[in-house]
This record gives sequence, structure tokens and C-alpha cells, in this order.
Amino acid sequence: MKLKKYKKDDLISYSFGAFPTMELIKNRCSMVDRILIHSSFKNMDVLDEMKKYIDESKIEYDKDKEIEKISDKGNEFVIGIFSKYEMNLDKELDHLLLDNPSNMGNLGTIIRSSLGFNIKNIAIIRPGVDYFDPKVIRSSMGSLFSVNIKYYNSLEEYKNEFKEHTIYSFMLQANKSLRNEDFNNKYVTLAFGNEATGLDKKYLSEHSLIIKHSNKIDSLNITNAVSIALYEYNEKKNM
Amino acid sequence: MKLKKYKKDDLISYSFGAFPTMELIKNRCSMVDRILIHSSFKNMDVLDEMKKYIDESKIEYDKDKEIEKISDKGNEFVIGIFSKYEMNLDKELDHLLLDNPSNMGNLGTIIRSSLGFNIKNIAIIRPGVDYFDPKVIRSSMGSLFSVNIKYYNSLEEYKNEFKEHTIYSFMLQANKSLRNEDFNNKYVTLAFGNEATGLDKKYLSEHSLIIKHSNKIDSLNITNAVSIALYEYNEKKNM
Repeated sequence: MKLKKYKKDDLISYSFGAFPTMELIKNRCSMVDRILIHSSFKNMDVLDEMKKYIDESKIEYDKDKEIEKISDKGNEFVIGIFSKYEMNLDKELDHLLLDNPSNMGNLGTIIRSSLGFNIKNIAIIRPGVDYFDPKVIRSSMGSLFSVNIKYYNSLEEYKNEFKEHTIYSFMLQANKSLRNEDFNNKYVTLAFGNEATGLDKKYLSEHSLIIKHSNKIDSLNITNAVSIALYEYNEKKNM
Repeated sequence: MKLKKYKKDDLISYSFGAFPTMELIKNRCSMVDRILIHSSFKNMDVLDEMKKYIDESKIEYDKDKEIEKISDKGNEFVIGIFSKYEMNLDKELDHLLLDNPSNMGNLGTIIRSSLGFNIKNIAIIRPGVDYFDPKVIRSSMGSLFSVNIKYYNSLEEYKNEFKEHTIYSFMLQANKSLRNEDFNNKYVTLAFGNEATGLDKKYLSEHSLIIKHSNKIDSLNITNAVSIALYEYNEKKNM
């Protein structure tokens, strides 16, 4: 198979860097096709750790030319090649829902915070960037491989599948402060909108929440807003 | 004066975009040299609003060629040109302290969150990126113009100037959880380290704090960690 730069319709994708690739190997071992190692990579501890999880024959050394071909800057030392896979969200766990996230770096950072605050199931309402893009994987620091993510065509489709989840939608139009919410409902879904446009009016409900901030700024950066909500949720549900 | 791309040693800098430029005009009006408007910019409301704060003669139209010369992508519609200025931190207000922030986008995003959660005085321990770089201004959405920022050569220099401030240092080695801290000391300084290395051991004290997260991730993204701390601080001090 000839390797080339990642495209959305490819059946395989790449993890760039030793740390994200280790997360791939630890969490999605059966999806790993090969691991490419650059001739300059000399960290034997990392290689020994890899061999605990995958067969030695999958680790290929001195792959400088192939690495240059598939990475953007050509300066990676470790690349994991894996088959893309489908995931389903767990009906009996809490969710994060992102309506049309449009920036790959932001999506990766949000996945990392979500895993950090114990939400491992993420719904994406289409459109929305490709979560298997190497840019998302990199900014997630490999957290992507520890969560379930799934696309839905609409909010309605998501709601039909998860009737027992209460959707807490984060909107500037909301009246209730995040700080005053106890998340006592059976199953929780924290919902956030697109970076530029936020959530559509149809998300507004008695469960809509606002993160109170001064009127000196228009809004918080989306990854910061999601992380604050996840932090508050985690303190109340799990601590 | 011949305009060129921004360099750190320049005496002037630029705000790219209508929103950040409006923040410049509203908050640092006396520092504004000129406002360049692209021939494609047709938002009369924004222009009318500008004229409330600065003299009409400072607004220059059809500056397409100059805009192309100084902006990175050449696709800006509004650019503010201003003289850089010095600021001092307020001794009787709480502070944010960043030790060697190294990413311009992150610094801007942090400034925006800081203003949003009512900390308007920010100390930067050198080295650290140039806070007047247009990339910082852009990612701050112009919040930079509403805060005081100042460089210090060392933590010691900062401490000598602000003896009444208690430094709450955010470190993975800390024992006390952010959630359990009431910030009852007279003046508060929230301190964060570099993106890659965190804070040096010398910051470890009885006032060190940790943001508890699952062991599934190594650490939170720095802008998310700072924003969570600012949120918690603001809820306890100001709400």
C-alpha cells in the first residue's frame, strides 16, 4: 500500500508523535497496521513499552522517507498507521454533544478535557470536522483513542437514540448559571455549539446554562467554555 | 512612515480585524495612530461607532496595498496602527502571573479569559512571548487593550513589588484541590507555568493548588487549566 498525506475519505489515518501513538497502541491495539520509526528516534524505553502491546513485526525502523511523505512538516519521529473504526455511544453513561465543531485543534483539545473530566462518549452533530484527521488526534494528545465518538445527522436523531439523557445546552441566552446546576438527572448530556455561531435557538430549554463572565468580553473561547463546564460537572457528579 | 510586517522591536504594533480594532479605539484611544480600511469593507455601523472615539482624520480608506503589506494573509478589512505603551500592575487588585508563556495564541486566549473573570492585571515572568505581537492581540479578541500587562525578570522581582499578594501556584505536585480553596487572602495571584514544563519547584508552597482530573490524561491544555482556575476564583471572590 502506497502511503500519502491523509484525506478524509481514506480508510486509514495516522497518529503523529510518540505520545499519541502510544495512546493508539494501548487503547486500540487491534486497529494498528504499522508503526513507522525515524532513524533519529533513539528512545528505547518507548520502543520497549510499545512491544508490550503489539507484535514486534509491526514496528518498522528507518522509515524516514515514508514519514516525510505523510507528515505535514516531515519532522516526526514516530507515526502510527491505523484502520479507522466505528464507535457507539454508551446509553448508560453521560455524554458531551458538539453541534458542528469546525476547528480541528479545538476538537482535539476538547476531547482531551472531556476524558480528563470523565466523559468518554461524544456526539457530533453534522457537519463538523473529521475526528480521525491527524490534526485532531495530535491536539487530543491521543485522547481520541480512549473515547467513543459518533456523528449524528441532527439533534433529533441523537434525541431519539438517547431518550433518557437530559440535554444541558450552554448558551448566552440561558438564565440559569452553571454554578447553580447540580446535574441530578439520570443521564447528562453537555451540549455546545459551533465556535462562531453557538447553539441554535432550538436548544434553548429549562436546562440551558450560562457560564457567568464579565461584560468586558463577548464570550469565552469555546475550548475554555467546554472545559469549565466539564470541570464543574465532574466536581458535582464524581468528586 | 513606511509600513511593514510587525517585528518585536518596533515602536508600533497592529490590531487586525474590526472587533479587536474597536477594542483598541475604545480602550486605548490616545495610542491610536491610524485606522486602515480596505475598499471591500462596507460596514457603516462599525465606522460610525469608531468616529465616536477617534478623530475622523485618523480613519483612512481604500488602503488595500498597505493592508496587504502588513497583514500575514493580506485578507484583513480593518487594521489599527498604534504606539506601544507601558503599563503598571495595580497593587490593590488581584493578579494573574504567567511564567514564560511561549505560545502567542495561548497568551491571547488566556488574556480574554482573564478579563472575562475579572482579573485585569497580568504579570509575565521573562522570557515569554511579546504581548504586543498582532497574533496575541488577535487571539485575545482585543482584550489586551483592557488589561495591564508587565514583564518581570524573575519571580523574586515580582514578589518584591507585591509583598501583600499571596501566590496560588498551579502545579501537578500540589496537594490541595482548587475546589477547596476559598481565596481568602488579602490579594490573590494565580500563577501558571510554561505550556511544556509547568512551574518550577520553587513555586511549590502551602498555597499550591491542583485541578483534579482523571488519570487518563497527563495534564490539561494550559489555556483550559487557566480558564478553569479563573472561573473558580471568580465564583468565590466576585459572585
